[in-house]
Parts: sequence; structure tokens; C-alpha cells
Amino acid sequence: MVAVQQERSGREHILNTARDLFSTHGFHQTSMAELATAAKVSVGQIYRLFKGKEDIIEALIGMDMNDRIEKIDILRLRLKAGEIDIEQTFEHLFLLSLRDKDEALSFDILAEALRNRPVGETVSAMCQQFRRFLRDFACIANPHLSGEALDGAEEVILASIFGMGHRSLSLPNLSNECTARRAAQMIVAALKATR
Amino acid sequence: MVAVQQERSGREHILNTARDLFSTHGFHQTSMAELATAAKVSVGQIYRLFKGKEDIIEALIGMDMNDRIEKIDILRLRLKAGEIDIEQTFEHLFLLSLRDKDEALSFDILAEALRNRPVGETVSAMCQQFRRFLRDFACIANPHLSGEALDGAEEVILASIFGMGHRSLSLPNLSNECTARRAAQMIVAALKATR
Repeated sequence: MVAVQQERSGREHILNTARDLFSTHGFHQTSMAELATAAKVSVGQIYRLFKGKEDIIEALIGMDMNDRIEKIDILRLRLKAGEIDIEQTFEHLFLLSLRDKDEALSFDILAEALRNRPVGETVSAMCQQFRRFLRDFACIANPHLSGEALDGAEEVILASIFGMGHRSLSLPNLSNECTARRAAQMIVAALKATR
Repeated sequence: MVAVQQERSGREHILNTARDLFSTHGFHQTSMAELATAAKVSVGQIYRLFKGKEDIIEALIGMDMNDRIEKIDILRLRLKAGEIDIEQTFEHLFLLSLRDKDEALSFDILAEALRNRPVGETVSAMCQQFRRFLRDFACIANPHLSGEALDGAEEVILASIFGMGHRSLSLPNLSNECTARRAAQMIVAALKATR
């Protein structure tokens, strides 16, 4: 039991150090030796817990995915309970994306995912979960949506949420809060007008 | 004159080879020696034409930027001439993004842009040009847009176009053509409903 806990906290410690190093210097520009030095462990200890750098990246994606899915599921429950309406749900969804701080690392992960099948499959599985939530939200905004109209709505929502999380290089004028509010209004208006 | 032409075609040859290599293997995973071998030139010849790998990446961004801006300007002219309406303009804009083939390289470039100031400034300058076009298009869809409503519209359009160009990992159901048509309808409906 103690050994399992030690292993879990060892993994967490290495993952947190890896996230910082990969964020700052890049995934491919960070060696296992540099990670070991920063985490104050031996390279051997890292390899006892992870198969390699790819395994570390997959674990980081998994952590982020679970965290994001959990937050979206809380929004879904608040919406079903009538605590927030559908426009506020989208506003919170956009805010989650706009406040994402790991932009550089996320680009590294996506580039890796396109060149490395196991990493790509992990990212795709995450997207499929998002899609189900977004589809559900689109149908709440407009219960008449179906077929191609619903598929199209899903694409627009997914694309705009993804784009919002990666806008810092585009030097936006508008604050995150204003952007989320305006985007939610536009998306709900678009969904309601869709036939 | 011949020397200038030779230099230009030498640059183009190296840039085309670099694009292929960087796309396949990644920007940081490709060395100058590998680029020289693939381009059948010496490393010295590359350094006579480019300051380094960053300079090559900036030249690639510049090429892509000019190509994209040129295509958007043609859309603007066709719209002003009444050949296409505003919904068709957005449909073509989305299609340009959806048909972009260099997803992995574009993630490499964006990660580098966040960690490397000169590369970041090149990408940001490109985004500012896009923003001016998108703002112009938003005002054609709804001439009453101004202030925060217009700023918000600009963010949503920019985010959705960016997101559409990076959706392959999300395993979409809908074809590029259907997605572009549906997205254009939704964006124009959202713009018209915005106050």
C-alpha cells in the first residue's frame, strides 16, 4: 500500500517537473537526463515509472483530459439542475479554454500526436469525449438540430473553443471574460438560427 | 541579375526541402546537416542564404502568410464586385483553412513562436493582417457592428477559422465542404443576430 502510494507520488512529481520543463524548453528539446536532474531523481527511476518520453506525454494528456472532462461534466450537471442556462454554459466552456496556460506545450503535444500514432490516439479519444458533450449542449440550445446541421454545429463549436485556447499569438484586444461572453451569445444565436 | 536569380532559386529549393523535412520529422528534430543532405547542398551553402533554422522557419511563415493573404484578398475583391455574397466569402475562408495540409509543421511553428520572440512577432504580424480582413467581412455581414460586439465577432471568427485548420486529430464526421458551408451559415447568422 505504501509502495503504491510512493509510486503514485513519484509519478506525480516527475509529471509535474516534466510539464514545467517541456512547457519552457519544448518536449523534444528536453532530454531524460535533464528531466532527471530537475526532478532530483535518477534516469533509472524515471524509466522504472515510465516507458519513455512518449509515455510521459501520454500521461500528461490524460491528466489534462480528465481535469477538463470533469469541469465540463460539472457544467453539464449545473445546466441540468437549472443553475445556469445554455448561454452561461458556453461562456464557462470558452473561459476554460481561454484560461488555458500551457499553449506552447499543447502545440508540442499536437505536433507529436500527428507524427506518433499512440499519442495521436490518446488525443483523438479525448476529442471524442468533448464532441459528445458539445453535441449535447448544441441540442439543448436548439432541440430541433439533427443530421448534418447538428454535425456542422459540433464542428463550429469545437473549432471555436480550440481556437480560443490558442489565441495569445494573435494579440487579442478583448479580455478573456468579454470574449467568452460575446462568443457564447454568438454561438447560441447561431445554434438557434440553424435548420 | 543571374546571381540574384540563382540566390532566389537556391533559397526556394532549400525552403521547399525544409518544409518537407520539418513536416515529416519536426522542426527541432531536423538538423542543418540533414537538411543539407536532403537538399543536396553543403551546410555552408545553407548558411550563406539563411542565418539559421529560425531564419528558415520565418521564411516559411512569410511564404504561407503571403499566399493566404493573397487568396483572402481575392475573396475580398470578388465580394466587393458582387461575384460572391458574404456567406460564400466565409465558406471559402473556412475551406482555405480546412484544406491546409501542414498541420504538424504549423503546430511546430506555433510552439516555436511562443518560445522565440522573433518567430512570435512574425506570426503575430500575420494574425494582425487576418484580423483586418475578418473585421471588414464581419461589418459587411452586419453594418451595425461596432465596439465590443465587433471585437467579439472578430475573436469568434478568428478562433473558428484557426480551429477548422487543426481538426484532423478530432476525427470529424463531416466533409470539408459540408463543414465550410455549415460554418459559414452559422457565422453569418451569428453576426446578423449580434447587437
